[in-house]
Amino acid sequence: MTREKPGRMMSGEMAEQPAVLRRILDEGAPAVRRTAERIAARHPRFVLLTARGTSDNAALYAKYLLEVRLGKPCGMVSMSTITAYGARPDLTDVLAVTVSQSGGSPDLVASTRAAREAGAITVAVTNNADSPLAAVAEYHVDMLAGPEQALPATKTYTASLLTLYLFVAGLAGGDGTEARELPGLAERILARGAEVGRLAARYRFAERMVITSRGYGYPTAKEAALKLMETSYIPALSYSGADLLHGPLAMVDNISPVIAIVPEGRGGEALQPVLERLRGRGADLFVVGSEGEVASASAGFALPAAGVPEDLQPVLEILPLQMLAYEVAIARGQDPDAPRALAKVTETR
Amino acid sequence: MTREKPGRMMSGEMAEQPAVLRRILDEGAPAVRRTAERIAARHPRFVLLTARGTSDNAALYAKYLLEVRLGKPCGMVSMSTITAYGARPDLTDVLAVTVSQSGGSPDLVASTRAAREAGAITVAVTNNADSPLAAVAEYHVDMLAGPEQALPATKTYTASLLTLYLFVAGLAGGDGTEARELPGLAERILARGAEVGRLAARYRFAERMVITSRGYGYPTAKEAALKLMETSYIPALSYSGADLLHGPLAMVDNISPVIAIVPEGRGGEALQPVLERLRGRGADLFVVGSEGEVASASAGFALPAAGVPEDLQPVLEILPLQMLAYEVAIARGQDPDAPRALAKVTETR
Repeated sequence: MTREKPGRMMSGEMAEQPAVLRRILDEGAPAVRRTAERIAARHPRFVLLTARGTSDNAALYAKYLLEVRLGKPCGMVSMSTITAYGARPDLTDVLAVTVSQSGGSPDLVASTRAAREAGAITVAVTNNADSPLAAVAEYHVDMLAGPEQALPATKTYTASLLTLYLFVAGLAGGDGTEARELPGLAERILARGAEVGRLAARYRFAERMVITSRGYGYPTAKEAALKLMETSYIPALSYSGADLLHGPLAMVDNISPVIAIVPEGRGGEALQPVLERLRGRGADLFVVGSEGEVASASAGFALPAAGVPEDLQPVLEILPLQMLAYEVAIARGQDPDAPRALAKVTETR
Repeated sequence: MTREKPGRMMSGEMAEQPAVLRRILDEGAPAVRRTAERIAARHPRFVLLTARGTSDNAALYAKYLLEVRLGKPCGMVSMSTITAYGARPDLTDVLAVTVSQSGGSPDLVASTRAAREAGAITVAVTNNADSPLAAVAEYHVDMLAGPEQALPATKTYTASLLTLYLFVAGLAGGDGTEARELPGLAERILARGAEVGRLAARYRFAERMVITSRGYGYPTAKEAALKLMETSYIPALSYSGADLLHGPLAMVDNISPVIAIVPEGRGGEALQPVLERLRGRGADLFVVGSEGEVASASAGFALPAAGVPEDLQPVLEILPLQMLAYEVAIARGQDPDAPRALAKVTETR
């Protein structure tokens, strides 16, 4: 195969994100809402979420939404309990949500089938309506992102977030119109590639990195860490701000740069003591957040999120961090499209 | 304060572990069982687990036990949903288990109080019967580890594991006598300090580390990573074997050593494809597992766990890894008793 510019696929797919978000809002939302209404009528009491990799971070975002907006206790499924140990829990009254871009991983299919047999209401959120996962679940929600070819998932992540947002809004009887500004804001962020390119120079020689946030920003921290590892092989450790204070802070010093995602809202407020502690230690602190937060850090990316509800900000927060992962990989002479050792559909069993 | 030998407190507390395990089995078990029986009679349908840091890894172990042995769907609580966002879920039929060595962290107290007000059956597993957490929960289970002074938790981790094992066994109507060999086996492992000291030399100059396992061994991987970071400041990334294949494998090469915990049982079997893949990439692979598994790796620690049920092996698996974290810190000239920036009771809110 003739190699073109490194990272061509990843950058192309990142650039598609505003159009994908628009498609979800314009074309996908009514079907997501109908599915959510049918499920809400069955009154699930507990929600289990199953996913791996990037989709696991999207599922974690959904967990926050379900707990805060719907007051449903939630759990993330440890799949090996079902696939390796044969656990067969009683899942009456349980909604089981499986998130997978490809819908093809055998363990996700097996655990969704097991959940359905155990009495759960099952819904698959995938980017492939013809996938085995979509077939095995009682309901299917399509994230409408179009084919994704680069190995690091980008547009399917933001598509998952928005689709899950609309799904949870639908469970709560809402229509998700508060999301309508996202495509335009995403466009403005993605136009700032040169700015991110300059910021990436900071990390060209970084040997490790710590990424932190709280609340709705925490899934963004986890996904940013995964992106940096997949594309640049930088060991990037993600912690909720509270967990960071419980131990790994010992590792942060002036040779361990920290990226903090500071949501505008309660998550950002809860993160303030952590930011103060980091500044007090002289940590190199890069902030994704408001202009004010960026100004009090070593560097950062000011997110145009004023007026966006806190629980929708994750759709925007990840964009500059995807761009950062891409630019750092390019600066290090690596091809972000084809990380070593990765296959697009991972066949874990 | 006069400084004595670095790591004196941590090594002393590690050495106490066989005696603590014996105390739990001899003195603690009947009370744990009575509490479990009273809770079982109330027929909880879902379980929520809340903890931070080392205790969070113990809580994850309990999640596997509850799902596999009891068939109860479980979730780990994202505490900020309650403390920052004010979520007030309906917790009827829910058992809420909070694990904390000190029982003093305000956010754990607040979220346990909120769970109780929301209708949950609440139980606190702590090392301090007089703590605010023990007071706020309906039931209290004491882990009987005695005062812990070193900042990296060691004896309270294994004490939490065994206490949680006995608690879940009690919920299932068992008496936990299958755990009776653990204190003797722990003694044999802890006597092999010189062997671990030699192995630690491999990691004196390591800049990063990947730790993996599956099933019951996965909480061990997470706890080992936390211990290495707390004591040696090595960025240690932990992944379930399945998640490792979904992305971060790109980061593993011959300069990123891998530690794999290979349980004897289904978790170890499920890990085999990951081990093959790592060997195929020429990874430096350190195994904690059977003699056969160690023999096919670059190095390792043979665990005397033959005949120990897989779901009790985590109590033993962590011991050589605690010792390794201690020895690596000493080799790097750091004091494992007093990592930078850590306080023993972390007051996150």
